[in-house]
Amino acid sequence: MVQETHGKGTYRITEEIEKRVADSNIQKGTVTIFVQHTSCSLVIMENADASAREDLHAFFESLVPEDIPYFVHTYEGPDDMPSHIRMVLTGCSEVIPIIDGTLALGTWQGLFLFEHRRSAQTRKIAICVMGI
Amino acid sequence: MVQETHGKGTYRITEEIEKRVADSNIQKGTVTIFVQHTSCSLVIMENADASAREDLHAFFESLVPEDIPYFVHTYEGPDDMPSHIRMVLTGCSEVIPIIDGTLALGTWQGLFLFEHRRSAQTRKIAICVMGI
Amino acid sequence: MVQETHGKGTYRITEEIEKRVADSNIQKGTVTIFVQHTSCSLVIMENADASAREDLHAFFESLVPEDIPYFVHTYEGPDDMPSHIRMVLTGCSEVIPIIDGTLALGTWQGLFLFEHRRSAQTRKIAICVMGI
Repeated sequence: MVQETHGKGTYRITEEIEKRVADSNIQKGTVTIFVQHTSCSLVIMENADASAREDLHAFFESLVPEDIPYFVHTYEGPDDMPSHIRMVLTGCSEVIPIIDGTLALGTWQGLFLFEHRRSAQTRKIAICVMGI
Repeated sequence: MVQETHGKGTYRITEEIEKRVADSNIQKGTVTIFVQHTSCSLVIMENADASAREDLHAFFESLVPEDIPYFVHTYEGPDDMPSHIRMVLTGCSEVIPIIDGTLALGTWQGLFLFEHRRSAQTRKIAICVMGI
Repeated sequence: MVQETHGKGTYRITEEIEKRVADSNIQKGTVTIFVQHTSCSLVIMENADASAREDLHAFFESLVPEDIPYFVHTYEGPDDMPSHIRMVLTGCSEVIPIIDGTLALGTWQGLFLFEHRRSAQTRKIAICVMGI
């Protein structure tokens, strides 16, 4: 699947993945979701209150700031290298069990693409649904 | 499975997962372990010396402290938002290969539920054992 | 497989995993890669420009420095406890989809063993290729 992004932040993709699982008719197994880039991530995060995600964004701005003076890899701007590091810290894949034909997410869990670049991007996501 | 927790820290669950794998009679494949919450994690960590896990706990208190002034999402107390961030940094799932009917863990690797909340919790963990 | 390391840094293993996938003749599925240690990691990272990985190494030296005064677990030297924490932050496994018989990596993604110890190490990596 493809997810368009328009700046830093988290973009919910739970429903698209849920639909892929439903279409597969697999009742029990796993779904692997893998974003094919090095400057955005996949995260599972609190899905009800947007303030939790706002705080998450602010925390990452503080943990991996754009103005670290020793960065060399800054060809694409100040958000270049921080994007790679934020991706390494949060990961580019998730594996979620499927139970009774649906994602085994907890009540408050949502799946989000975490965009680390300032500019608009078209993000490609590989998905593999496997049954047992 | 369910894991009861009584405050912040790491709770070893290696043996329960090993038992599930043994019960499945699968000799080769993977086991996916997924905690269905947004304020605790799963981590693989040094399993022999408890001081390593004590240092880990202390480090996360320092990396994501409870008193960050810009946090908005603090309805459930000072450990609310730090729990979500610690979970994003450490992840809610692990996928471990199965070789010869047993978890392919290294000598010093153990699987732990990493609880980020202060209060007692009942944590649900989804498990999927898949053979090839 | 085994990867020899000679000090801190990232060691590319994309080609070895790609070969395993090709040898399996599996056209669609996943490959799980799992490093059986608690002081090194697996990461997916920018694979073209070495400066990105140099900046990554420098960042982790800063994020989890060797001289944190409260560390107790330092029997094997100042890089002992930081190694465990860096491993928890970056993870010891990756799951990558297989599409058309090849790893579904993006153009700029490479798979690297991230060594956190100063001394030379022999690192064991378990690999499980699964088809659907």
